[in-house]
Amino acid sequence: MRNVNQENITDAVLDSFANTPDPRLKVIVDSLVRHLHSFAREVKLTEGEWSKGIDYLTRVGHITDKKRQEFILLSDVLGLSMLTVCMNNERPLGCTEATVLGPFHVDGAPHYNLGDDVANGAKGAPCLVRGRVLGNNGQPVPNATLDIWQSDDDGLYDVQHPGGDQAQARGVLTSNEKGEYHFRSILAVPYAIPHDGPVGELLRASNRHPWRPAHLHFIVSAPGYKTLTTHVFRNDSDYLDSDAVFGVRESLVCDWVQKRDGSFLLEYEFVLDPAE
Amino acid sequence: MRNVNQENITDAVLDSFANTPDPRLKVIVDSLVRHLHSFAREVKLTEGEWSKGIDYLTRVGHITDKKRQEFILLSDVLGLSMLTVCMNNERPLGCTEATVLGPFHVDGAPHYNLGDDVANGAKGAPCLVRGRVLGNNGQPVPNATLDIWQSDDDGLYDVQHPGGDQAQARGVLTSNEKGEYHFRSILAVPYAIPHDGPVGELLRASNRHPWRPAHLHFIVSAPGYKTLTTHVFRNDSDYLDSDAVFGVRESLVCDWVQKRDGSFLLEYEFVLDPAE
Ligand SMILES: [Fe+2]
Ligand SMILES: [Fe+2]
Repeated sequence: MRNVNQENITDAVLDSFANTPDPRLKVIVDSLVRHLHSFAREVKLTEGEWSKGIDYLTRVGHITDKKRQEFILLSDVLGLSMLTVCMNNERPLGCTEATVLGPFHVDGAPHYNLGDDVANGAKGAPCLVRGRVLGNNGQPVPNATLDIWQSDDDGLYDVQHPGGDQAQARGVLTSNEKGEYHFRSILAVPYAIPHDGPVGELLRASNRHPWRPAHLHFIVSAPGYKTLTTHVFRNDSDYLDSDAVFGVRESLVCDWVQKRDGSFLLEYEFVLDPAE
Repeated sequence: MRNVNQENITDAVLDSFANTPDPRLKVIVDSLVRHLHSFAREVKLTEGEWSKGIDYLTRVGHITDKKRQEFILLSDVLGLSMLTVCMNNERPLGCTEATVLGPFHVDGAPHYNLGDDVANGAKGAPCLVRGRVLGNNGQPVPNATLDIWQSDDDGLYDVQHPGGDQAQARGVLTSNEKGEYHFRSILAVPYAIPHDGPVGELLRASNRHPWRPAHLHFIVSAPGYKTLTTHVFRNDSDYLDSDAVFGVRESLVCDWVQKRDGSFLLEYEFVLDPAE
């Protein structure tokens, strides 16, 4: 393994990983090494560019903390997140489609009863959200868990507010015996993904905007069904055709109806795919 | 750009970068996106694996600080660093070959006079290092800058010692009017790259060892010549054929001679390549 050159170094690196005991890890690392080297070779990466890349990743790492996940943002704007979603969520026709998780999900959000206001003080026009969770034969799914989260009227998630340690517009609910759910929250609005860090720098350098169309996040899970991570989008939102993270699916775009008193109503039925 | 799927998402992402004004950035980002997506597609990356990848990079970022550069280590053990060196340092026969920078270079190391002891208290067998800096026609290169750094007898660089704010076995010298240099330091020994973090985890999971053969780092620069980043290795060292970072070149392996008093002597002539 002395005297590697640009032609044989990839084989030398692959050889070094030859004794990886976990076969899946070996497949992943081998492929990663080959594609990483192919990339560097294709662009003939200079030492200055390599150094800028190290610095860029370092800054992505350093801006990431418990409340901000710049690596997920980077994966999102490079389409890697949505590609991964697409590859792993092919579902039978009629089942609700999946989309990206995004960087703002928080484990352990507060539990609410059906009918509660999950906004918990978050700013925005009142919005009632209701519907059912069904199996793919139309049968109701009782006791399904709905983990929901969204930004406020300023386009910010609770965790983005300075000192925002209180869950707002975020919560966990359980469908009733008929598979029904309903809760009060606020109207979703378009927002810009955090763009004051390295990901924003990349977007600006590429003449890309950081905006996402208005949406409400859901993770819907129930025993016997595949967990569904998705959004419901507003059909009158800007950016439906230029989502910064490539997450829009026509089947997830829905009418959020404004009522006479100015408040909104969103009705959405989730159809889950049975687990194998 | 609604309804991307695993077949067309790569084109959608490339389209989003279509208006990147800097042509070189566009080439790099396009290639990166294509290879990143090809990797994910080839291994059919699962959502759990994506999530582990995000977590892994986050930990690489969080262990990196002013004194520890885990992204460089990761690039080193994946062979990306050495590939970049190989692609950018093809030199005419007779010129000294380059190798990896590694993660332990520090800008602004103290300046020494020829003959000084750069060890500055670092533990190790005394070693005199001397030689000349030449141009590729054999002419001496006066006033060449030699930036040198090495680990101590425990296999640790100064920055790896707790509170190690004092430069040890690290310094900058200038060749005299005959191109000569000489300084005192300590004998280089093999060392393990830092392996208590994510990179160590990868090495263990791959049954790879973290060792590097004994070496002394040099960056040699002079007006009119390409800057040379290299090592001089010890020919009696372990790991010359299994360097954890793929950096060994036969032409850089040299006899470090033990003298009667137990101290060592290393003589090495650097031959620089003229800048274009
Ligand atoms: Fe969102
Ligand atoms: Fe080193």
